[in-house]
Amino acid sequence: MSTKWVYFFGNGRTEGQEGNKNLAGGKGANLAEMVALGIPVPPGFTITTEACTAFYANNEQWAEGLDEQVMENLAKLEEAMGAKFGDPENPLLVSVRSGARVSMPGMMDTVLNLGLNDVTVEGLAKKTGNPRFAWDSYRRFIHMYGDVVMGVDHALFEAAIAKKRETEGVAQDNELSVEALKELVKEYKAIVKESAGVLFPDDPIEQLRGAINAVFRSWNGARAIRYRQINGIPHDWGTAVNVQCMVFGNMGETSGTGVAFTRDPSTGENVFYGEFLMNAQGEDVVAGIRTPQPISQLEQTMPEAYAELVRIYKLLEDHFKDMQDIEFTIQEGKLFLLQTRTGKRTATAAVRIAVEMVKEGLIDKKTAVMRVEPEQLDQLLHPMIDPKAKYTVLAKGLPASPGAAAGRIVFTAEEAEQWKERGEQVILVRNETSPEDIGGMHVAEGILTARGGMTSHAAVVARGMGKCCVAGCAAAMIDEEKKTLTFGKKELTEGEWITLNGSTGEVIEGQVPMVEAQVSGDLGTLLSWADEFRALGIRTNADTPHDAETALEFGAEGIGLCRTEHMFFEGDRISAVRQMIVAEDQEGRAAALAKLLPYQKGDFIGIFRAMQGKPVTVRLLDPPLHEFVPQDAETIRKLAGEMGISVESLKARIESLEELNPMLGHRGVRLGVTYPEIPAMQARAIFEAAAELTKEGVEVFPEVMIPLVGTVQELNMMRDICVEIAESVMKEYGVEFKYLIGTMIEIPRACVVADEIAKTAEFFSFGTNDLTQMTFGFSRDDAGTFLPHYIEKGILEKDPFQSLDQVGVGSLVKMGVEKGRAVRPTLKVGVCGEHGGDPASIDFFHRVGLNYVSCSPYRVPIARLAAAQANIRNPR
Amino acid sequence: MSTKWVYFFGNGRTEGQEGNKNLAGGKGANLAEMVALGIPVPPGFTITTEACTAFYANNEQWAEGLDEQVMENLAKLEEAMGAKFGDPENPLLVSVRSGARVSMPGMMDTVLNLGLNDVTVEGLAKKTGNPRFAWDSYRRFIHMYGDVVMGVDHALFEAAIAKKRETEGVAQDNELSVEALKELVKEYKAIVKESAGVLFPDDPIEQLRGAINAVFRSWNGARAIRYRQINGIPHDWGTAVNVQCMVFGNMGETSGTGVAFTRDPSTGENVFYGEFLMNAQGEDVVAGIRTPQPISQLEQTMPEAYAELVRIYKLLEDHFKDMQDIEFTIQEGKLFLLQTRTGKRTATAAVRIAVEMVKEGLIDKKTAVMRVEPEQLDQLLHPMIDPKAKYTVLAKGLPASPGAAAGRIVFTAEEAEQWKERGEQVILVRNETSPEDIGGMHVAEGILTARGGMTSHAAVVARGMGKCCVAGCAAAMIDEEKKTLTFGKKELTEGEWITLNGSTGEVIEGQVPMVEAQVSGDLGTLLSWADEFRALGIRTNADTPHDAETALEFGAEGIGLCRTEHMFFEGDRISAVRQMIVAEDQEGRAAALAKLLPYQKGDFIGIFRAMQGKPVTVRLLDPPLHEFVPQDAETIRKLAGEMGISVESLKARIESLEELNPMLGHRGVRLGVTYPEIPAMQARAIFEAAAELTKEGVEVFPEVMIPLVGTVQELNMMRDICVEIAESVMKEYGVEFKYLIGTMIEIPRACVVADEIAKTAEFFSFGTNDLTQMTFGFSRDDAGTFLPHYIEKGILEKDPFQSLDQVGVGSLVKMGVEKGRAVRPTLKVGVCGEHGGDPASIDFFHRVGLNYVSCSPYRVPIARLAAAQANIRNPR
Repeated sequence: MSTKWVYFFGNGRTEGQEGNKNLAGGKGANLAEMVALGIPVPPGFTITTEACTAFYANNEQWAEGLDEQVMENLAKLEEAMGAKFGDPENPLLVSVRSGARVSMPGMMDTVLNLGLNDVTVEGLAKKTGNPRFAWDSYRRFIHMYGDVVMGVDHALFEAAIAKKRETEGVAQDNELSVEALKELVKEYKAIVKESAGVLFPDDPIEQLRGAINAVFRSWNGARAIRYRQINGIPHDWGTAVNVQCMVFGNMGETSGTGVAFTRDPSTGENVFYGEFLMNAQGEDVVAGIRTPQPISQLEQTMPEAYAELVRIYKLLEDHFKDMQDIEFTIQEGKLFLLQTRTGKRTATAAVRIAVEMVKEGLIDKKTAVMRVEPEQLDQLLHPMIDPKAKYTVLAKGLPASPGAAAGRIVFTAEEAEQWKERGEQVILVRNETSPEDIGGMHVAEGILTARGGMTSHAAVVARGMGKCCVAGCAAAMIDEEKKTLTFGKKELTEGEWITLNGSTGEVIEGQVPMVEAQVSGDLGTLLSWADEFRALGIRTNADTPHDAETALEFGAEGIGLCRTEHMFFEGDRISAVRQMIVAEDQEGRAAALAKLLPYQKGDFIGIFRAMQGKPVTVRLLDPPLHEFVPQDAETIRKLAGEMGISVESLKARIESLEELNPMLGHRGVRLGVTYPEIPAMQARAIFEAAAELTKEGVEVFPEVMIPLVGTVQELNMMRDICVEIAESVMKEYGVEFKYLIGTMIEIPRACVVADEIAKTAEFFSFGTNDLTQMTFGFSRDDAGTFLPHYIEKGILEKDPFQSLDQVGVGSLVKMGVEKGRAVRPTLKVGVCGEHGGDPASIDFFHRVGLNYVSCSPYRVPIARLAAAQANIRNPR
Repeated sequence: MSTKWVYFFGNGRTEGQEGNKNLAGGKGANLAEMVALGIPVPPGFTITTEACTAFYANNEQWAEGLDEQVMENLAKLEEAMGAKFGDPENPLLVSVRSGARVSMPGMMDTVLNLGLNDVTVEGLAKKTGNPRFAWDSYRRFIHMYGDVVMGVDHALFEAAIAKKRETEGVAQDNELSVEALKELVKEYKAIVKESAGVLFPDDPIEQLRGAINAVFRSWNGARAIRYRQINGIPHDWGTAVNVQCMVFGNMGETSGTGVAFTRDPSTGENVFYGEFLMNAQGEDVVAGIRTPQPISQLEQTMPEAYAELVRIYKLLEDHFKDMQDIEFTIQEGKLFLLQTRTGKRTATAAVRIAVEMVKEGLIDKKTAVMRVEPEQLDQLLHPMIDPKAKYTVLAKGLPASPGAAAGRIVFTAEEAEQWKERGEQVILVRNETSPEDIGGMHVAEGILTARGGMTSHAAVVARGMGKCCVAGCAAAMIDEEKKTLTFGKKELTEGEWITLNGSTGEVIEGQVPMVEAQVSGDLGTLLSWADEFRALGIRTNADTPHDAETALEFGAEGIGLCRTEHMFFEGDRISAVRQMIVAEDQEGRAAALAKLLPYQKGDFIGIFRAMQGKPVTVRLLDPPLHEFVPQDAETIRKLAGEMGISVESLKARIESLEELNPMLGHRGVRLGVTYPEIPAMQARAIFEAAAELTKEGVEVFPEVMIPLVGTVQELNMMRDICVEIAESVMKEYGVEFKYLIGTMIEIPRACVVADEIAKTAEFFSFGTNDLTQMTFGFSRDDAGTFLPHYIEKGILEKDPFQSLDQVGVGSLVKMGVEKGRAVRPTLKVGVCGEHGGDPASIDFFHRVGLNYVSCSPYRVPIARLAAAQANIRNPR
């Protein structure tokens, strides 16, 4: 017996292909599934994916038996519809669509109305009583078929119809007369003959064979191959072909068409939601010439069809157990479902639907947790531009920190603070930000930078603050002296209103209205379910008690990264920091450090108190010292005065701190090796804070993290300093508290020698930002010049600073975890880079066995959900 | 039977310990070996390393039986010498020395004259007829014993003798009278009592036990532990103790002492070489009060002793099969050998001795090849400062490129070229050099920089040119405007003479005479033997036909790295390069590239022709573009004029090229991805050059190397460009030539995904400079601020830019080789970083299976020898 290549569906009958996506493709399996459920679907047949692979195996020839089976099924179709291919009175018209196992952009679009020719077009005109529609369909069919099946340049048809509009003196295609359309059909056929070198096929059978071949071939089109490469889809899957009868919603007042959702896709409310048009085709809805009516009105217009539709949508939701997006056509009173698929929805709706479906007993909690895209939650946690607002986009930058904000333009951090003090809302606009701008960033509603990428200073700090930021907006020309911000010819000056959309990267003219984020109770419910399923701990990156409290509210279980450098900029202390840095000897440094100690201690008291005994990972000073020194003449003069040294020698000292590649320079633990008094001061501040709170009865759990370690010897030096101070502080205060000493793993070498390092380190925290920089050799500050090309040309699938490069950087992370745990099985391992808040990366971190991820406070809910999904996919 | 802890040696008798360094330590085994050869050695006994480890296992107590065995052997010694411990007439005096398996600085020095006390000192005085000598020995013994055995502060004894010199009114210790020395002995004993709290031991047995304990304990002294950690010596080896009779060369005119080498250690000539003093002790030679006589005169002075000495030295050389450094003493006509060890020698001598010993049949070629330290050869390949010259060192920098050079000071590359043109010898003095300085560096005799490390631009380029360079001389203050070079208070101006010693880092005042390097025929012989043994290929890094020819003379088998960026600076082409860089669109770039093409093609023709069909690895453009653009206003104005654009817009373009971390920025293959026309031009130049020469009948073998690859997609893009051009050039010229397309592996990620990359790459060349930078996260330009601390504090054993970090960076290299070969077993793998010329690194590259190393021309001989040694140690 020869292979079965073709499966019929229709009139309640299928041949077992329902649900078999590997064989029938996604679309074919779904259509059959509806038929099997007894839902009226225009009948048709599916040519299997196996027929496609056989086509390629067979030197692009149809497999034996395929043609016969197509003809048999065509006959069944004619019988089912009481219509015939090529019949002048009642012609059978079909659509032909590709349909792979998974939806795949880049493959052949639909060919509609196949079966039309000079004879059958008249039949269609008669049947629909609408000659204009018939000839327009025929014109479209030649265009579509000529383009996708016969390879005729799209533009040739466009040019012909444009010319026709001109000679006819009309503006829109739908104003063309029947006569004009008839002429156009002739012209289109001439174009096909001229361009393809053959006549347009009149024979419907020939049309059908050509269309099936075109679908087969579209599997190996350049775009489809590219898509498969990027998405890891095997090239040998092949595509199915769906041939289905056309039905018409424009056959009079008892015909119509519509689209609907089984629940409200905006709010998630459990109501039937959609719209329809009587005596119309789907295209009419899209063209917007007539206004569709709400679906509820169909009840009045066609009560029976409506009742049937309600029965069907409930059946579909019940069957697929998810909100469905359906398309239907009513042809002369008879309802046909054309498509059902999982409906797209807003974040709010996704959460509500998932939670309510659990309450309705439709799905279980695990399914609900899997239903919501973690990344979507971001929308719920920030203010948004009012969806109803109209606005003008000036330029687009990188969506560096989500949410939206409006404010008046200022160009320096100082001005931001001054304007804010007198009650103004401001947007800070800079070429790029530096740690000196922290104060201004803090008071601004949002930040716009012309340079820098998704992990530039501005982006990282803004995300940490939960503040809207558009970064790397190359079109923005900033003149700080003239205080102007120019986009092309549009010049804005200081004080003018501007609005940023940090979720899309849009920079918008003027002040656009906002809607506040709504965190409904459903989100809390869903996240509490997520917590039941996840294995990863979720911590936050927080440098202040305020951030810590925000993160706690979002569900953080500890601080995974408390940077101490931001603390150095606050208030008066920057002056002491600078004295420490430019000191000429250890004594001078020690004196300045002594001034800093009480400040740092105060910082830690605030944070430890906020965290109520949850672990707090404090990273010792990391950035190169030149980030702290002043660059402007005025501040240098002042500092020289304070220090009692000459301006020249201060300038020389500041210059000596400059580095060619600061990222790979004198920073992190290297500062501690050369100036051990700095980590000593920080350790004292940490442990004195811990001791004081312990004395008060507040529980504390500091974890001291040494950054940028590449050799165990560095870590040993720092560990010795910290342990000695911890022991002596405990004695001084007469208390005991637990603490850990660990390290950041962010240097490639640290991954390679993680077994050595784990002999000393009590925990690892992967600093995947720097690890990505060094593993790729990409400076995130400079990568803006080439990284976009890399994404665009498909060299990299994603920005590795946003989503972990699992193959490269991830291999080093895995190596680090394995080597570390081999030596110290109880090693606590986390991640505190930006990737800690990225769902795909969280999935990876779960799989390689990390204990926790740490992310900015506003991403904590996302991380909780992503961690739960990771553990549901790959249970530990 | 109890363990044997002590082994006797003397009077031709040993107890089997000769050659057993594990048991008797190096010194003990060697002394016994001489005794076994029938050579007169002062008798003594060795306490085994096992006794030391038992001491520690036993809570710092002597093992059972040790004391008895020491006493037995002491009795044997007394019998052998006819002298007795504590005998007032003929006292036995001994030396006590430590002696581990390998020579280990940081352990106990010798204690001499043990056995002296207030009674025996008189016996010594009588025996030697020299009371001053006896009391001075006693004084020294108390000092030495008090210090190393009893822990009394050295400085206390120094202070006492200084005071004594003052009260006695003498300048030197040896002018002190016998009376003064007697007083000093009393005072020294008082110091010991005061400081150690116990009396100085009078009993020789007690003295001996104390000294043995001190040797045992010195095994665990802080310095010894540190030394073992650094050198990977196990802590449980323990040290042996050697107790040996004292002999005296100052017992009259038939006594004497001397040192000698079995061959001339300076030239390697096969003559007995050394000096001696009659009626003297070894110290007298060192003190320089009397001038020693050449050893040949001993034949006249004491013909019998001399004949015996000649017999012995020949015996020793014959036995050890290497040039020996011996110490001897003649006591009352009787010759004693005190020590024999392998003699240190100059590079010239090492080569000559190795080659001549093969010719004499003493050793085989393999042994000869192992006898010469590869690093030593460096001395033979560069001019040197005349060893007889006297000079004043102004400062010391890093010995960045060996050899010496003198010239007049100039401060810019342009001046260097101008001065050179009018026939002056110049030294180029810069804060640091950049690619713009290449021309000036080329004409200078040597280069001095104030900043930058061993792998700074100046250092790397100078080594490549084989030109002397002192880099990172922090003491040099350079004022380019005033044209002065200041060291502290010494100011030098333009045109003054200065001399550099690139082998030591010395900066020397004025013009010091030089001697030319002598590459004797012996070196050629030795290297040809090395070539018989090595498995690694040796290539060179060369950017010009001249460098290529030099390297060929040194034995290079190909070019492993031909950088193309240096070519961009020559002559007029820099202007075209700059036009290419600042072009605003692809057209502008293409026009400028078209101008460059003939230049580049010419470069490659020259190099390919020089290399006569040997493989030439050409690296496509690597550095960030801003290295090529002008920074000075004048050149910017000129360039803007040439390009017909405004100075402002040119400045803006130049500014836009600036990067925060250029090392991790837009360079290497990233340039090719964003501007594919650059690699296209370079590929065309390479292949047209190859085609032209092929047509001429010259064999060529270009290997195109893509730098900075981190993903196979980058390489695929470049490979496609190159292959297309190669094929089309071959067609155009109607010729065929072989070529390869491969990549530099210098990004950590490339090692991790080497299996992916090897699918495309036909060869790998490890760029260990950048790989070290990124694996450690060290910028070599900036590491000068902390790397010295790292070495000093023992965090790193060696500068990883000079000698490969085998544990960290090496693991990634190994991973890269293994993953690459797993996919493509025939993959050709080499290294072209600085490490390709470092012997320890070469040994590693041999072990991980590389095909070749590539180094600067002047290191090719070193690499040949090191590669041979690597293969002898670990044959492939």
